[in-house]
Amino acid sequence: MAKDKEFVKEITPQSQDFSQWYLDVIRKADLADYAPVRGCIVFKPDGYELWERCQAGLDRRFKATGHRNAYFPLFIPESLLLKEVEHVEGFNPELPWVTEAGGEKLTERLAVRPTSETVIGEMYHRWVQSYRDLPILINQWANVVRWEKRTLPFLRTTEFLWQEGHTAHRTEAEAREEVMRMLDVYRDFIETDLAIPVIPGRKSESEKFAGAVETYSIEGLMKDGKALQAGTSHFLGQNFSHVFDIQFLDDDGQRKYVWTTSWGMSTRVIGATIMVHGDDRGLVLPPRVAPLQVVVVPILKKGQDDVLTRAQAIADGLRGVARVRLDDRAEYSPGWKFNDWEMRGVPLRVEIGPKDLEKNQAVIARRDTGEKLFVSLEGLDATVSNLLETIQKEMYERAKAFMAGSTRQAETFEQLADIIENQRGFVRAGWCGDAACEAEIKEQTKATIRNIPLELPKQGPGRCVKCGHEAKHEVLFARAY
Amino acid sequence: MAKDKEFVKEITPQSQDFSQWYLDVIRKADLADYAPVRGCIVFKPDGYELWERCQAGLDRRFKATGHRNAYFPLFIPESLLLKEVEHVEGFNPELPWVTEAGGEKLTERLAVRPTSETVIGEMYHRWVQSYRDLPILINQWANVVRWEKRTLPFLRTTEFLWQEGHTAHRTEAEAREEVMRMLDVYRDFIETDLAIPVIPGRKSESEKFAGAVETYSIEGLMKDGKALQAGTSHFLGQNFSHVFDIQFLDDDGQRKYVWTTSWGMSTRVIGATIMVHGDDRGLVLPPRVAPLQVVVVPILKKGQDDVLTRAQAIADGLRGVARVRLDDRAEYSPGWKFNDWEMRGVPLRVEIGPKDLEKNQAVIARRDTGEKLFVSLEGLDATVSNLLETIQKEMYERAKAFMAGSTRQAETFEQLADIIENQRGFVRAGWCGDAACEAEIKEQTKATIRNIPLELPKQGPGRCVKCGHEAKHEVLFARAY
Repeated sequence: MAKDKEFVKEITPQSQDFSQWYLDVIRKADLADYAPVRGCIVFKPDGYELWERCQAGLDRRFKATGHRNAYFPLFIPESLLLKEVEHVEGFNPELPWVTEAGGEKLTERLAVRPTSETVIGEMYHRWVQSYRDLPILINQWANVVRWEKRTLPFLRTTEFLWQEGHTAHRTEAEAREEVMRMLDVYRDFIETDLAIPVIPGRKSESEKFAGAVETYSIEGLMKDGKALQAGTSHFLGQNFSHVFDIQFLDDDGQRKYVWTTSWGMSTRVIGATIMVHGDDRGLVLPPRVAPLQVVVVPILKKGQDDVLTRAQAIADGLRGVARVRLDDRAEYSPGWKFNDWEMRGVPLRVEIGPKDLEKNQAVIARRDTGEKLFVSLEGLDATVSNLLETIQKEMYERAKAFMAGSTRQAETFEQLADIIENQRGFVRAGWCGDAACEAEIKEQTKATIRNIPLELPKQGPGRCVKCGHEAKHEVLFARAY
Repeated sequence: MAKDKEFVKEITPQSQDFSQWYLDVIRKADLADYAPVRGCIVFKPDGYELWERCQAGLDRRFKATGHRNAYFPLFIPESLLLKEVEHVEGFNPELPWVTEAGGEKLTERLAVRPTSETVIGEMYHRWVQSYRDLPILINQWANVVRWEKRTLPFLRTTEFLWQEGHTAHRTEAEAREEVMRMLDVYRDFIETDLAIPVIPGRKSESEKFAGAVETYSIEGLMKDGKALQAGTSHFLGQNFSHVFDIQFLDDDGQRKYVWTTSWGMSTRVIGATIMVHGDDRGLVLPPRVAPLQVVVVPILKKGQDDVLTRAQAIADGLRGVARVRLDDRAEYSPGWKFNDWEMRGVPLRVEIGPKDLEKNQAVIARRDTGEKLFVSLEGLDATVSNLLETIQKEMYERAKAFMAGSTRQAETFEQLADIIENQRGFVRAGWCGDAACEAEIKEQTKATIRNIPLELPKQGPGRCVKCGHEAKHEVLFARAY
């Protein structure tokens, strides 16, 4: 018992220091390690498998909505990047530059891509001739680099993994439809697969993507009350098509510029998964993406070898419905194993002891609630399968209830500031639409407008929480990662 | 008819200029495009999907042999790279360097990874403590960069995509077993999924990987008689574990250095697939990796709308057994479509005309042989499914027969030089093991020792084809990509 307690102590409690808790969990659950390169992490197998499962969930949805994958180069010549002024100004401070290669100084610097709108714009310029070539619906899975000043594993690292969709359309309406479709694909993925509820909405002018006409985002709420932008979808209008001269001959004989979109989701959703579901015992993983869904732990006593044999058979019997591991390591006690697998977030633990076998039952422990169930070995696969679905659903419901309970309304700036300082969470409040009010609120409270939710308030937006003038929108404020 | 002929003319015949044929096919079949960055290509959706299917075939085999994926950083600090002298000497001329980032000059240059032994060695140093931590069986899917002087799409590009496996073992025997296991995984994948026969063997000292004790390769033969190294598996001995201090406490209480391996296969296998199977009409894709396996072309005449309806139903009926597309485009003639899909390498074409429907039959054309079959619409799915399997198998058999027919024995240097100059292909010949003989042969014939085949010759290796001394091995000579 003493040993078990000690074990868990190595994770700092959330209430004591949430940031330290986050770093402890990543280290103890073996998701990632710091790399010997500034601001970079190494994805260890369990961390990478979470990403592989996110990739599978997203890729399936991208293909179902008519997209195909392609791959564009890592390096972007400086001249290409300089073409879109707003875009380059947004990214310039974060760029790493290759200046030497093959033993020579390069005549033109190459940026390591922070995102690929420019190089893709150049290719679409070559590929699009006629309206018959449209739409182009392409996605890329890639690594990108942004020289961030402050880094945090998964959430903000110098190099990160993501997907970036880039589409070109014949009409504005079609492009706008695509922007909203992909925002909803993100919402569906993160809510269904990662059990993370989000608020979809439009970014304010000051928070939009460099080069976009409009940026839409989905915003989640972490357990410490800070928001996290989990995916963005950009309506780029004709900005990039003008700059890269992406024109097509329409069926009316006119040459026209295409309308483009881009949208991205990155490995930061792994950080969100940790911070939305984790607790003081460690990770809590949604069954759909958990590398391991069920661990079977035999309670071994001397002279009872049949327990191990039966546990093996039970584990094998579950492989048709779940990702299962039998933990038959002799060098660790059952208690140690319970803690270890809880820390790693495995959704279900099946304990098999000699007394259980006598009664033809097993003890199942749920990671999310800690609940223990005595279940029959008859139909165990159906029991486990149903429980995994229940956990997935209830994890989402709990996160949704937490978000609802942490979303407050502010009528005055004092209320807004007070909530942000003392309670965190989302604050809904009116905003006049003026960037000056937005900037002042940010300076005074460190809260930003996360987005202007798509779902309109039941009553009108009221008055601006800062200047008191008539509000244009009700917006969502929060401190954010 | 005239139009059809013209269409095909756009691909240079193989016999006229194989290199130009290769570039024509890539362009016309829409696999890739040149990127606006020196020596880089853009993988277009059909080219990238070939890679996705290679990834799936390999990843499944890696996981079945106990490996897991992880991800290590793109950048490698110069000091880390300098640690392994042979390794850095091998790669130094090919490295691109990041020297500026975030608006500042870096105090230490960062190489863009050409391969990841060094950064992974540094991590394994941290991760390995005890024999219980071994083996480490990790693979990485990644982009790598080598500043090549002469580039060719898929075969040799500045940036390319690959996987690199990196394992660490307790004993030499276990590491050597891993090296051979992964070589055989590559052989199985490329023969089964890409229908490309290969010769597995060991590289000569002068051709081995920089930093390896031994390198093993699989070598394929392209239709122009040039060889292509399609995958390598390296026994790194304790070279990297000494340099990176990867030690473990063994169960005998001794601290020991681990034994490491690495192995890689890249997007160049797409180039091999094109050059092993393609013909003067374009691509010929093995069914297992073809993005599209069957195209259904309705032969439409005015007033016969039911042909289109039936063709649609037939295409839908095949979706359970194959990746199918109905080509119902009105703006192209059936003949044009036949040529277009042949050029793109689609394994089977199903033609549906009014007369076929009367007879309850369809015409099926095989891309690999050009053969036309009249088949009943009853049980069409089984017919198609069997045909796809037959094609996969026969493509492999034909490539194998071609390789066998292009493999010759040389007793003297004159024979070797004559075959290489006038016939190309593989030449089996004795070699004394001396690097001087190997270098002279290379200088005089441009042929290199591809490998020392694992399968030993029936008779002894005879005499060295260059110096006439007793041969140590029978080796495989060829000019290579």
